[in-house]
This record gives sequence, structure tokens and C-alpha cells, in this order.
Amino acid sequence: MEKEIIPVPSSADLAELFVQAHLVKHKAYVPYSNFRVGAALLTSTGKIYSGCNIENASYGLATCAERTALVKAVSEGEHSFEKIAITSDVETGFTGPCGSCRQTLAEFGLDLDVYLVNPKNESKQYKLRELLPIAFTPRDLQKPRTDHDITE
Amino acid sequence: MEKEIIPVPSSADLAELFVQAHLVKHKAYVPYSNFRVGAALLTSTGKIYSGCNIENASYGLATCAERTALVKAVSEGEHSFEKIAITSDVETGFTGPCGSCRQTLAEFGLDLDVYLVNPKNESKQYKLRELLPIAFTPRDLQKPRTDHDITE
Amino acid sequence: MEKEIIPVPSSADLAELFVQAHLVKHKAYVPYSNFRVGAALLTSTGKIYSGCNIENASYGLATCAERTALVKAVSEGEHSFEKIAITSDVETGFTGPCGSCRQTLAEFGLDLDVYLVNPKNESKQYKLRELLPIAFTPRDLQKPRTDHDITE
Amino acid sequence: MEKEIIPVPSSADLAELFVQAHLVKHKAYVPYSNFRVGAALLTSTGKIYSGCNIENASYGLATCAERTALVKAVSEGEHSFEKIAITSDVETGFTGPCGSCRQTLAEFGLDLDVYLVNPKNESKQYKLRELLPIAFTPRDLQKPRTDHDITE
Ligand SMILES: [Zn+2]
Ligand SMILES: [Zn+2]
Ligand SMILES: [Zn+2]
Ligand SMILES: [Zn+2]
Repeated sequence: MEKEIIPVPSSADLAELFVQAHLVKHKAYVPYSNFRVGAALLTSTGKIYSGCNIENASYGLATCAERTALVKAVSEGEHSFEKIAITSDVETGFTGPCGSCRQTLAEFGLDLDVYLVNPKNESKQYKLRELLPIAFTPRDLQKPRTDHDITE
Repeated sequence: MEKEIIPVPSSADLAELFVQAHLVKHKAYVPYSNFRVGAALLTSTGKIYSGCNIENASYGLATCAERTALVKAVSEGEHSFEKIAITSDVETGFTGPCGSCRQTLAEFGLDLDVYLVNPKNESKQYKLRELLPIAFTPRDLQKPRTDHDITE
Repeated sequence: MEKEIIPVPSSADLAELFVQAHLVKHKAYVPYSNFRVGAALLTSTGKIYSGCNIENASYGLATCAERTALVKAVSEGEHSFEKIAITSDVETGFTGPCGSCRQTLAEFGLDLDVYLVNPKNESKQYKLRELLPIAFTPRDLQKPRTDHDITE
Repeated sequence: MEKEIIPVPSSADLAELFVQAHLVKHKAYVPYSNFRVGAALLTSTGKIYSGCNIENASYGLATCAERTALVKAVSEGEHSFEKIAITSDVETGFTGPCGSCRQTLAEFGLDLDVYLVNPKNESKQYKLRELLPIAFTPRDLQKPRTDHDITE
């Protein structure tokens, strides 16, 4: 009897994900912060979408690398994600994603593996649910609501 | 010898903070989600600023209650915050703040006490640093950066 | 018989609106751009709400002065606005509001008078509808939609 | 003597741009608004990048179709754009882009041709500078600033 083959991202896949994050970092459009970030997102179907941060003269319209990667993937019909690698130019330690990106990624599931990667290619791994505990998710919008509160 | 008096927010103060969060929830402008949220922010100077969520036909321009409270306070010159109470109409459990709000609050310090309050006035307390571990903060922008990465 | 008195903002009111915009500009929290903006919003009920821009280490979470003023007003129950004055430190010419602010203000009506004010207190006046032609508004979300397009 | 050939987008190119906008609309992730938008952006190098709107349980993190298309292009190294086609499911009239998208596109130039396209493939054309008059652009951040204003 044949053993069922379950595709598991190999370390080769992970290495490729990290490389894509480093490479796309060089596309960052960051005239205001000069802080480059790259991200590469692995879908459940095995594809990689990569994104960089892109700023605007109106600072609030800046988009992060992680969200660029995500919207690229979603606009191609992808809704299921396995891993994301995130890198910047910061030499020491590991730079976490901003809260907006954690929230945006959480829309598609909290089981995502998040790899923080430094320029030397060293990495630390987290689950998205660790980075956004007590997350606000689509389920919160479905929960039963009361018509009055303690002040009424 | 006189004992030094350290002003600690009393439970009366906390009760008032919760009441303000409930009350401002009724100001929510939410024609699209119909999901009302209220937040009340206590400054280190003892003042309370309260905010609700405010939506827009272009969904991405919605602002959350927590950020409304924060910008009100900052625009009055406040930069130091002790506690925030957050409430919605959700009956069961406790609704966490979205990632954008965690990030926006984090700009002014991770020691903030975050109280999730339900319509019955029951609450759960967290530190902001628990809700945004490995936070991206102003210090990240100051860290030494490398000129090249593993791909170069 | 008494003539009905219709309250019209006098030039004194307008002068006060401009002063409030200048004053709140000094509250701007702009460690990243160093570009201070102040805005003062006059409600139909005759109140003035003022706001400054407030930035974040994650640039995309910056909020503009105009939106700070707006959410302050809305969170106090105001939904009808007459005029907004906007000022920055730019010496020459007149600085327009960003597109996000035009959109956020448009939610509450396109008849708003927008005054761009420079540090010398010189001003230029526009209607919001001039600054956001073919605006996307709440009505667009209500329009009849088709089930198929040319590609189907 | 040979006549110099200046590449002009033909009506065939424009037709293709519109088709791409219609097609990507079907990828929209809009569980909250149920309002689908598609956009296709033509670069100066002749490539088309297409994007849809993508929403989030935290409404403020929604991204529009136009911005999805833009960040895809920029993350591939494109900074110069000729035309954008924008379409939704609205049957009658033409739906304009939101202010945030006008601002985000303006970062890369106000000469962009903006085509509003309806499901029947009828269109109206605007210049971005018409849709965002008195635009706030990167140049505004460079202008000389004063150290004091009328209130000082
Ligand atoms: Zn981010
Ligand atoms: Zn929020
Ligand atoms: Zn703005
Ligand atoms: Zn938009």
C-alpha cells in the first residue's frame, strides 16, 4: 500500500522564500523613511508572492511590504497562506511586522508561520497567533450583540 | 515621618473610564458595519479622552474608537497614557483591538493597561506589550542598518 | 413681526477658525516628517474642533490634521460641518489636503468650505466638491448593480 | 528618411486594459461591502498590472483595487504609469476612485489618464490632475517653511 504523500515545504523552499524577501526589498519605494522592507508570502498552492514597502507624501498612505505581498496574492485568487518571510536592513536583532500588517494577514488565518529574517539570513519563527493574541477577526463581526449596555 | 503619596488610579477612576467608553460607543458612526465600538483613554495627567469608530464609504478610511480617542488626546498635547478601556456591543467574551490600533497606541509606550470591557461591564486586563509582542516601535527606525544583504 | 435671524458665520468667526488652525498646528506629533499641519472645523451648530497630524513609526498609521479634527467632532455627536481651515508651515503658496482627508470629509457632505491658510494668515477658499470631483460617496454604495459584465 | 516611430497606446491596448480591469474584479475579496472593484494599470514600459479591492474585518485596513494594482507594479520596479482603468458592478453612471487612491496614484505623477469603465464597457476619461486639483505631492514636503506663524 502506498503511503500518502503530504507536501511539506522543505528547507529548500524556505531558503527560496527568504531569498525572495531579500530581493524584493531592493524594490522598496521609501523616499521618506529610507527604511526598506521586503516580504515573501508562500501560498498553500506553493506559489511565492513578494512585496516591498511603498510610501507616499501623505505618510498615512504608505503600504508595508507584507501587505503588498498579500494583496498581490489575493488579487491572483489566493486565499490560503503557509508562511511569510519579512526582512529589512536592520543589522541586529529581528524586526517585527507592524500591527496593521498583523491584522491584514490575520484575515486569512492565524496559523501563518511568520519568519523574521535579518540581512545575514538568520531568522526567528513565530505563529501569527502569537504576534496578535486576542485577535480581532471576521468571527468577531458575527458574534451576538446586545441592544443595551450598562449605561442604559 | 510622612509616607509618600503615590497617586494610583482608584477603582472609582477605573469605573469612570469604563462608563466613558460605554457612553461614547453611542456616538459611533457605523452605517456600513453596524458594529459600534467605544474607547476611553486615561492620560498620566488624569484626564479622560473618549472616542468611537467612524466609517467611510471607502471602507479603508474607517477609523477605530481607540485611535479616535488617541488623536483627540494627542491634539490636546497629551503624550503619556495610563489606561484604555474598549467596549463594543458583543455580548459574550471580550473583543480585542485591531492590529492598527495596537500599533498606533504603541507609539506612545507599551506599558499601557488595556481593558476589554463587555456591555455588562465585565472586563479583562492586558498590557499593550502582551497584545503586540515583538512590536515595531520608533526605536526600530533608529537601529543600525547594513548596506548589503545575503543576496548581494 | 420679528425677522427670522439666520446665523451666518461672520468674518470674526472665520478669523477665529484660522487662529484655531494655527494654534493646534503646534500640537502636531511629527517626529518623522517634521511637517506640521493644523486644521479647525466649524460645525453647523457653531462649534470649532481642531486637530493636528499625528505620525507613527509605521508610516501608514499617520493621521492628518483634518481627520483628527473630524473624528473629534463626530465622536462628540457632530455630523454637519460648514467650514474647515487648514494650515502648515509652508511659506509660499497654499498646501492642499491629501486625498484621504478629502474623502473622509466627503462622507459628511461636499458643500464644505475649505480654506487653505498660510502662516501669514492669507487664505484661499474652495468647495470640497471642487477638490474631489466625481467623488466616491455613500450614494455609490447604494446604486443598482449588474450581475455580469462585458467579460461574461 | 525614416519617420520616427512614437509608440502610442492603440485602441487595441486600451481595450485590453479594460478587459483586465473587468476580469480582476472577479477576484475582489469583499465579504463586508459586497462591492467589487477592478483596476488595471498600464506602465510606460507597456505592461499591465491589475488589482481588486481586498477588505478586512477591521474596516480601515481595506485596500482598494487601484492601490492593489499600483503596489503590484511598484514592487516589480515600475514607477512610471500611463493609464488606469477602473470598473465596478454599478450599472449606471461612472464610479470615481476614492480620495486615498487618487493620492496614492499622484505620488507617481498627475498626468495619468484615468478611465472610469462601467460593466457595459462604456468609459469616461479624466486626467488624474483633474480628479485631484491642488494636489498634495512630494514637492509640498520640499517647500521652504517658516519658523513662526501669525499666532506667534
Ligand atoms: Zn506593516
Ligand atoms: Zn482598530
Ligand atoms: Zn490628509
Ligand atoms: Zn480607493
